[in-house]
Amino acid sequence: MAEARYTIGVDFGTESGRAVLVDVADGRELGVEVYKYRNGVIDERLPSPDGDVLLGPDWALQDPNDYLETFKQTVPAVVAKAGVDPGRVIGIAIDFTACTMLPTKADGTPLCFLDEYRRRPHAWVKLWKHHAAQPEADDINRVAAELGETWLARYGGKISSEWFFPKALQILREAPEVYRAADRLIEAADWVIWQLTGVETRNNCTAGYKAIWSASDGFPKTEFFAALDPAFANVVDEKMSRSIVRLGDVAGRLTEQAAGWTGLRQGIAVAVANVDAHVSAPASTVTGCGTLVAIMGTSTCHIVLSEDAPTIPGACGVVADGVIPGLFGYEAGQSAVGDIFAWFVDNCVPPIYHDRARARGLSVHEILEEDAAALRPGQSGLLALDWWNGNRSVLVDADLSGVLVGMTLATTAPEIYRTLIEATAFGTRMIIDAFEKGGVRIDRVVACGGLPERNRMLMQIYADISGRTFRIAASAQTPALGSAMFAAVAAGPEAGGYASIGEAAGRMAHLRDEAYEPIEAHRETYDLLYGEYVRLHDLFGRGGDPAVKTLKRLRLQAAAVAAGS
Amino acid sequence: MAEARYTIGVDFGTESGRAVLVDVADGRELGVEVYKYRNGVIDERLPSPDGDVLLGPDWALQDPNDYLETFKQTVPAVVAKAGVDPGRVIGIAIDFTACTMLPTKADGTPLCFLDEYRRRPHAWVKLWKHHAAQPEADDINRVAAELGETWLARYGGKISSEWFFPKALQILREAPEVYRAADRLIEAADWVIWQLTGVETRNNCTAGYKAIWSASDGFPKTEFFAALDPAFANVVDEKMSRSIVRLGDVAGRLTEQAAGWTGLRQGIAVAVANVDAHVSAPASTVTGCGTLVAIMGTSTCHIVLSEDAPTIPGACGVVADGVIPGLFGYEAGQSAVGDIFAWFVDNCVPPIYHDRARARGLSVHEILEEDAAALRPGQSGLLALDWWNGNRSVLVDADLSGVLVGMTLATTAPEIYRTLIEATAFGTRMIIDAFEKGGVRIDRVVACGGLPERNRMLMQIYADISGRTFRIAASAQTPALGSAMFAAVAAGPEAGGYASIGEAAGRMAHLRDEAYEPIEAHRETYDLLYGEYVRLHDLFGRGGDPAVKTLKRLRLQAAAVAAGS
Repeated sequence: MAEARYTIGVDFGTESGRAVLVDVADGRELGVEVYKYRNGVIDERLPSPDGDVLLGPDWALQDPNDYLETFKQTVPAVVAKAGVDPGRVIGIAIDFTACTMLPTKADGTPLCFLDEYRRRPHAWVKLWKHHAAQPEADDINRVAAELGETWLARYGGKISSEWFFPKALQILREAPEVYRAADRLIEAADWVIWQLTGVETRNNCTAGYKAIWSASDGFPKTEFFAALDPAFANVVDEKMSRSIVRLGDVAGRLTEQAAGWTGLRQGIAVAVANVDAHVSAPASTVTGCGTLVAIMGTSTCHIVLSEDAPTIPGACGVVADGVIPGLFGYEAGQSAVGDIFAWFVDNCVPPIYHDRARARGLSVHEILEEDAAALRPGQSGLLALDWWNGNRSVLVDADLSGVLVGMTLATTAPEIYRTLIEATAFGTRMIIDAFEKGGVRIDRVVACGGLPERNRMLMQIYADISGRTFRIAASAQTPALGSAMFAAVAAGPEAGGYASIGEAAGRMAHLRDEAYEPIEAHRETYDLLYGEYVRLHDLFGRGGDPAVKTLKRLRLQAAAVAAGS
Repeated sequence: MAEARYTIGVDFGTESGRAVLVDVADGRELGVEVYKYRNGVIDERLPSPDGDVLLGPDWALQDPNDYLETFKQTVPAVVAKAGVDPGRVIGIAIDFTACTMLPTKADGTPLCFLDEYRRRPHAWVKLWKHHAAQPEADDINRVAAELGETWLARYGGKISSEWFFPKALQILREAPEVYRAADRLIEAADWVIWQLTGVETRNNCTAGYKAIWSASDGFPKTEFFAALDPAFANVVDEKMSRSIVRLGDVAGRLTEQAAGWTGLRQGIAVAVANVDAHVSAPASTVTGCGTLVAIMGTSTCHIVLSEDAPTIPGACGVVADGVIPGLFGYEAGQSAVGDIFAWFVDNCVPPIYHDRARARGLSVHEILEEDAAALRPGQSGLLALDWWNGNRSVLVDADLSGVLVGMTLATTAPEIYRTLIEATAFGTRMIIDAFEKGGVRIDRVVACGGLPERNRMLMQIYADISGRTFRIAASAQTPALGSAMFAAVAAGPEAGGYASIGEAAGRMAHLRDEAYEPIEAHRETYDLLYGEYVRLHDLFGRGGDPAVKTLKRLRLQAAAVAAGS
């Protein structure tokens, strides 16, 4: 028997970073360490000494030092906890939220590390959920439509304020001197790899999904950027790089400095950076076509692989090699899933269920699920549209809001709870149907993330409503596991790793034993309810009835008056 | 100064009877006494010695002895409590829920008082909310439509299972020997007057609103009843009376026996029976055209007076002299109002508001109102259709259910609470608009009942949304006051009473000082929201979108399967 080899995957989340140490042979997770970012999500004031620099609404920043601390705090600790010889760790890889980006000097020093920029908000990391670049996103979408940019179709017809160029353009417009001082604008994912390797790389996943890049067409052309602002014309050549590295490749080797931070061997392989959702696909065993990967938590992200790239209306993006080398990777999403259930529990559940939960040492979710699981499809008489946080796919419309139909004086909280779960399942089925109509096959679903492992009723409802078998990834931390798998690929067979992510997935990724099969007796009612859902979805979501848009407009107007008074 | 004269109004409610002693000069209420019916609402088993006679679903019965007990328990007590000379009580009158009806022998003895019928459910009083005669109502509506009965239009195109003939037909079908044994079928309202006077009368209010009678056309013709069942052909002549007495008239004089029960003088005037909602109109000062009376509690009943009787689609009924002699009285209604708010508090309000209420010694309603009152129109971004218990007017459709649009992850319980109040106000505006479109003017609204006096925000929202000034009746017990007013009219000027109900209202009925005027700054937003409400109302309520109907069908199917499994 060969001696054990290990890799480490580091998952950079919104609130914390997490390192997992994995056995390359079988994917066993031998240890996990989490570092809660000291400065967390910076959305009110900069962590400058005086705390006197306030941020505007919709701002969300981070401190790049928290990323370095993640390496220093978690990697040595996880090696120690697992009790393995650090010399047997053959590679390291990371995944990150995206688009999370920052301005740096040419040597990689973040501008916010420099005294002269430390009090400038635009010098810090813009986190994925920094939404203050909406005017820039609107302009980009408008100009792209005017110029007939062909790349718009790859992104469902609209790009998001969360993405790279709206954030970059916001820096230029609001802090031109910060923009000028920035030698580089870079994804935080790529920046941390730069810190580990001393080599600046740009991964094709964030470039493709968040920075409008494709292997065939590159970035949007200079004329497009110039139309936004003459000073923005050469943003790619001045601040970025046209050299994009494919997932699965080696970014570089661990430097002496980074070996010092991590306690790992200098020179081991460091993989090209990846995105948390996308790296979850192989960690859920999915490296081929026909399977939808659903990363289900507060929101849901969907990943689907395909051999070609037909246009799917309302998908978030399609990128060649964007998830698995050799295949097109589609991303789609539902902007609120677990968030809706949490909202319901926090805002709509009367004391009796809280009391029952407390008395039995269960969560309110579990108490509601007990009652809700006893209901038959259709028995609540309720139907919802799951738009509490807008609709990401297939309508791509953040202005939509939730709808609930069918309440009577006998309607109970567990009935509404089940209805909200069903609504998110109908939303998933809409996305599956959009892919299949577009020519991308989806035969089954593998779910991962926080929701599936906890909620059997939810999984069964999803299977019943979608008509697909649902399996669940064995790992509770698929992003970090996926990164560890890519680290094994970066290390390569010669160092005890694997030649491809497919091979790594075959050994290191696993599913739970249980499978959720559609219950035939539930299908007819759910098909009928889905018909109602689709009709109301199109009615309220595609302009047939303007109610939700009018309500949003009146809400904003009233809020503005209230704020001014 | 003349010596004081008093009258007594007795209001027979669903759970209790209430007597109020009133000063005829100014309507001051000098005392109130309530008798909670010993047998209450009988909806599970008969109060027979063994309690072994079970009732079916949707049954609701009462014990006529509870009505007699009401007189015996409350009238002497209220006279004693007020400390007045019973010899100065010049008249007595009652109002009742309707249609609440019972079978009796020719001498007025209820069949359920006789040993041989005491164990027969159909021998007892059928309370207004006895809903087990729906098949009979369906047949009546079908046959009426087939035969082109012109009276259907007076009742908005459909009669209710709560009304007289469905209940009578149910007795015939399910207990023909009880039907045969009944010499009379009579409204409980008229039966209690019979007990006070020894004279059987039939009031034109229940006859008109609940028994398809009109002064011009009488009852439906024999052929119609025969088409339902040959044995039903002569129900009017065999079991009822074609002699109908107008509101405001004297039914008879207090008998020696009834004087013994009540401690009042034998021979004083007893007014013709009335209905609780209808008698509230003059008690709210309304005896003429142009004012909507809204009796607001768990549900809302509307009364409007008119000099002519155009067809108002979806009104519950129009009866000449049905509320005030000389005018047509319209009835309309909203089948759930306070019930919706109570449902919300019981089923949808999280512990924090309950805790705040407890800490401050307030109700949860009051806590929610505090937060909701701080919101501007439109600020919640929410809109609801108030159909938690179907729609009585203007759609006349019990199968409809509630709709809520516009939820986000930031939506709070007070926002939903306010939205539900707004929804019922939009429902009221729909009814006002239906009257005005039909040619019945509504310039202002007077509200009475349990809701208005407690809830200032609700009143202001109703004024803002309807664009009408809202006043509130001064009396907290308008039905009993209204009855006392009719008692003064029955007594007449010669006994110290009044010549007409209009004259009585001018002296005895009062409004609270406060007036809720529409706030101009709120009108524009509420007009916009009302436009959304009307469109969704028509979409879901008039067949444009079948969602609520489909959901109801699936709910009933699933419940049937669940019950059978």
